[in-house]
Parts: sequence; C-alpha cells; structure tokens
Amino acid sequence: MNEMRYDWLGDRWVLFAPNRILRPDNYRDPSKPFPHPASLAIADRNTDEQCPFCSGHEQQTPPPTLVLKTHSSHDWSVRVVPNKFPAIDPANAMPIGNTFPCASADNSELFLRKQTRGGHEVIIEAPDHIHSITQLQADHAALIFEAYQRRLRYWRSVQAMRYAVVFKNNGADAGASLVHTHSQLICTDFLPTDVLKTQLRASEYFQTHSRCYACDVLEKEIQSAQRIVAQTESFVALCPFASRLPYCVSILPVEHQSAFEECTPGQLVELARLVQWTLRSIECEHPQVAYNYVLQTAPLDAHNPAAFHWRLKILPRLTKVAGFEWSSECYINTVLPEDAAKALGRHIPTGLSEKSLSRTAITQP
Amino acid sequence: MNEMRYDWLGDRWVLFAPNRILRPDNYRDPSKPFPHPASLAIADRNTDEQCPFCSGHEQQTPPPTLVLKTHSSHDWSVRVVPNKFPAIDPANAMPIGNTFPCASADNSELFLRKQTRGGHEVIIEAPDHIHSITQLQADHAALIFEAYQRRLRYWRSVQAMRYAVVFKNNGADAGASLVHTHSQLICTDFLPTDVLKTQLRASEYFQTHSRCYACDVLEKEIQSAQRIVAQTESFVALCPFASRLPYCVSILPVEHQSAFEECTPGQLVELARLVQWTLRSIECEHPQVAYNYVLQTAPLDAHNPAAFHWRLKILPRLTKVAGFEWSSECYINTVLPEDAAKALGRHIPTGLSEKSLSRTAITQP
Repeated sequence: MNEMRYDWLGDRWVLFAPNRILRPDNYRDPSKPFPHPASLAIADRNTDEQCPFCSGHEQQTPPPTLVLKTHSSHDWSVRVVPNKFPAIDPANAMPIGNTFPCASADNSELFLRKQTRGGHEVIIEAPDHIHSITQLQADHAALIFEAYQRRLRYWRSVQAMRYAVVFKNNGADAGASLVHTHSQLICTDFLPTDVLKTQLRASEYFQTHSRCYACDVLEKEIQSAQRIVAQTESFVALCPFASRLPYCVSILPVEHQSAFEECTPGQLVELARLVQWTLRSIECEHPQVAYNYVLQTAPLDAHNPAAFHWRLKILPRLTKVAGFEWSSECYINTVLPEDAAKALGRHIPTGLSEKSLSRTAITQP
Repeated sequence: MNEMRYDWLGDRWVLFAPNRILRPDNYRDPSKPFPHPASLAIADRNTDEQCPFCSGHEQQTPPPTLVLKTHSSHDWSVRVVPNKFPAIDPANAMPIGNTFPCASADNSELFLRKQTRGGHEVIIEAPDHIHSITQLQADHAALIFEAYQRRLRYWRSVQAMRYAVVFKNNGADAGASLVHTHSQLICTDFLPTDVLKTQLRASEYFQTHSRCYACDVLEKEIQSAQRIVAQTESFVALCPFASRLPYCVSILPVEHQSAFEECTPGQLVELARLVQWTLRSIECEHPQVAYNYVLQTAPLDAHNPAAFHWRLKILPRLTKVAGFEWSSECYINTVLPEDAAKALGRHIPTGLSEKSLSRTAITQP
C-alpha cells in the first residue's frame, strides 16, 4: 500500500509508491536507443513486440476506462487505462465516507503519515508504436485532448477528490519509462501544498484587482509581443517572463476560461495544432530533447472561476536541476524567455490556425 | 549582466544568467565518456590536457581566493577560485550602500525584475584529475571542508549578503559540466523564498517546543535506528523520513550546532570520513549514479542560533523529476527511506570513526 509522509520543516507531503519501481523501462536497456521522433515517418505502422501500449497488446493493460476512435483502421485511436503501477491507491478501494486521518509513527508531529486515494491513468495516444504526438494528424491529436477533458470530468465527479492533473513525460530525461506516445492523469484526495498556495495567490490577485491574473499578463504579453511564440484565434503560446527552465512555453486561452473542460470541440482542434507546432518547434531547435507538459485546470474544490485561468505548460529538459536549486528552490535559467520565444517562433508558420503538421510542412532541424 | 525576475503567481524569484551557457561542458562531448570513480585508482596522477582545474593549468582560472595544502607533492591541495561563468554578478561590483530596488518592465507588479549581487566560487578539491572525493585520503578530504568553512566565514563578513550555500554537482545528471572533482559556493544578497520559509518553520517549532526541530528528530531517529545509515561520535547519517528522492541521506551533528563553521578541526576529519563512506556506499549500491550534495549552514541574517541546525544533504539522482512533480511540487518517491538506509548501511564498516577510505577498504560494487 502506498502512503504519504509529511516533511514538517519543508511543509510538504511526499508520496511513497515502492510498487512503481517494478514498472517496465524502455530506457534502461542500452541496446534499445530511444528513437527520435524526427527520424520516424508520421504514419509509422510498426508494432513493437515488447510494448504493452501497441495495438494487439490490449490484454497487457487493465480494461480501458475510455476508448475513442477517429478515421483509423484500428479498433481504437486513443485508449485510457488504469496505470498498472499506480503512484496512488485506487479511489474505489476507499469505502464511501471513510476518511484517512494523519497517523504519527511515534505519536508526535514529526513523523506524520497518511493513506491516500485517487486515480492514476495512462492515456495511450495512438495504436501505432510512435513516439511523439507531433507525428499524428491534427484530428487524432485533438482526440487526445478530448480524452483529457472526459477523464477530468469523470474525476471531478468522484467523491472526495481534490486535485487532478494531466501530464506527459516524453523521453528518459523527462521521467518517461515507455517510448510509445502516452500521457498520464493523476487525481488525489489531497491538495498539494504548492498547488493550494498558487490558488490562494490567484484569489488574492482577483480580490485586489477584480481581474484574473493570467488575463492581465496575457493582455500585456500580446501587446509587447516579445515573448510570444505563436498565436491562434483562441490561444497564445508564450515563454513566461520568469520561467525556471530554458525554453519553457505556456499555452493559455486568450479569453478567460477557468477549466480546460470548457474548451469547445473546435477549440480542441485548434489547441491540438498549436501544441503540435510548439512541440515541433522545440524538437527543431533542440533535436532529441526530452520534455514534460502539464495541464493545469481549475481546482476540483469550490473556487472562484473568475480567478483561475487554465494553462498547458511545456517544460523542455535541456538543463539539469543542480545543487543550488535543490538547496534553495531558486532556479538559475541560462536562456532569457525573449530569446527563447524568438528562436521557437522562427519554426512556426504564419496562418497557423489553418495549418496542420504534415510530413511536407515540417521544418527539419 | 545577470538579473532576477519574479514569478508573481509562484511567489518565487528566478535567476537569469545567460553567460553561463558559454561554460565548457565535458559531458556534451560524447567521444569523452564520463569515467566512473570506482574505475580509477585513488592516487590517480593523470592530468587532463583540456581540464582547467588540473595542476599546471592555474592560469586558466581567475586568481584564487584561498589555497590550502596538505602533505602533497603539488603546490596546492585545495584551491578556491571565482567562477568564470558566475550565476550572480560579483558583490565587489556593487558600490557600498547601493541598493537595487525592484524595477518593473512595464510599471506593474506583473513583471518585476532586479539586479542582484553576490559571489560564485569553485572549490577545486584536488590538483589531480580525479572525479570523486571518495578517491582522496581523509586528511585531504577534511581540507575541502575546511575550505568550505573559511569561505563561508568570508562571505558572512561581506556587507549585504543574505544567503550562502555550498553544493556539489557530481555527474552529468546532477548538473555537473566538468568531471574534475569540485564543489561550488553561491552567496546572494537576497534570501530565496523557500529558504526563508524553512527558517520560519524552524523558528516556529522552537517557539512552540523550546527545542530545536532537528535535535528532536535526531533523538527519535537514533532511538528507532530504522533510518540510520551510519553514526560516528559527532555525526549521524540518516535517510530522512519524508525525503523527496530515493536514497537521500542527511548528515547532521548529534549535538546542536547552528553553523557548519562551528565544527572543530577534529570534527572536520570525522565528517570528511563519514561523507566519503556515505558517498561510497551510494556508489557501491548504484554504480555510476550522479548526485548532488548541499551544505545548509545557519542563516547569514540575524537569527536564533538555537532554532537552526546545520546539515549536509546528499541527493542521488536515480530518478527524474517528471510531470506530476513539475505541476504539483509534490514528489513521488519509489524507495522507502527505511529500505534505503538498510541497503546503504550494509556498505559501512563498524568502527567507522577510525576508518579512512583506502584502496583495500573499499567494497567494490
């Protein structure tokens, strides 16, 4: 059973999931180098014999919680399954109304631990053994974002859930263990300390200014244009003013939206295209770079929807978190966001809203 | 010129140091693989032609701020020099009494930036081209810790300095760019948000209990013994109850000491031995693992010395920080500290206080 433990001095909880050490890891086998997306054809149909996410290997994963299909010769296009090696014990193992009070290992406040419940799902983004969503057609990519919406809506409806996030680990340096393109959703019955803090900051800004913090930032960013990577009708991709890592990009809706689940089907296609082009510009600028992205939607708890603005954050893993950062939590970033935005923007075509990534349209690094 | 920028929503400052992208990087050249410490003889006398830290190449670094010598055929044993690619602009570039108020890029609170000053030094730990302090004799290793003490005392005396930390990045995954064994010291004229927060927590604990938080934790840890890796007369090495990464080890003085600079010369030798053995146990358990260590000493500002307890934290980089962590700042740790302590403790000899690492004493992985 997994557990959480409280670091009193750091005022943060840590999730312990010893079972996850058993999960398969493509990257640990040096005889199988990670193939770079750019080296693969878009419609790569290969199936990897060892890959549990490939079409035909469905019995290697638990029964799906969601299956979506676009124009495809396969039975499915996007498939969501419970993670076989969850970071958190399943919510359905929790009797309704049960609570998990903090327990101390020695009756003091120094060693607090508690059981925790939630969900950990894998969004398998394609039936073929491909390695990046930049290899997919835009309508297929949009289906992935629709899957995010549906699963977030589901977890919002589950009793006692307090936090849900969708994220992607792409490449070994970003913490991925399998190369087949996928993302994950984790939902928890606790609110991480830093997430709560950010929510309180957003509320504080709204109380002072009667405006959403992100809306104010976006207005000024669009006006100055110096950190904009790309813009479509509904969305902006920009390099945040004080990002912690080089070449970070945040994608936000221009008009205020609190929850990602509010996006219309048309906006999902537009978003999918923008995410694909942004990732491709990062791949072009830094071939073989690993990256994470995280989708931060509105809080699951009662909150002021006018104060929270959803966003997708892309974090290329070009540099390593080192000693100074571990000691101070203060990051040293070697690339100014203005320079990063300029470099990435060069790879983005004009008239982006209409342009899908296609084999011919890709600017090769 | 470097600058800091404020992330209003995250309530944290980020240091921007574009000059650091120019620094040399041994790891980027794939034709020169990183040699693992265990594969090298302790008294390796080789000099690397390209290495700016090797004996004979002193002209490639700025003039030293400290030189220490033990029984050595070289002119020096430990050499401290200003970092050629500093993360922070030098304190001596700042006129006395000058302050650097926050400036906004657009007259709002959304884009705060400021100049910052401090020090960034490199502690070159040996004249020979070796890659780990586990390869040094104990008296030489103790000299490294003496250098830390001396430089911390110096930076404590510099006007307007508010934070100083010594840290080591060992291996590419830990952010090192040069393989020659070294550590770094960064001193800043600002207090990082999270450092301040931890100081406030320690003060809060002291006010409530009239006891130091770490002293209370140590008492219970020594009693239970389940997370102890090794213990000497003056120090304990333990795997913290709620550590964020697998196999983290903290080393603390058993008797309360606020500042690391309070250690006696005898204690420095004892500490050096314990650090060497702990690192060696990590190298044995996980060959070729990269790691960071950070030395957290008493605040430079006025503080209650009874509330703060210095520590050296060792952070092996076995797993990657991934999407969930980037989104929530909540870590998933796959190894229970009790299991880590047991595994590491197996490599530590009894009667540690008297035992130096030597070629014959090393347990090979």
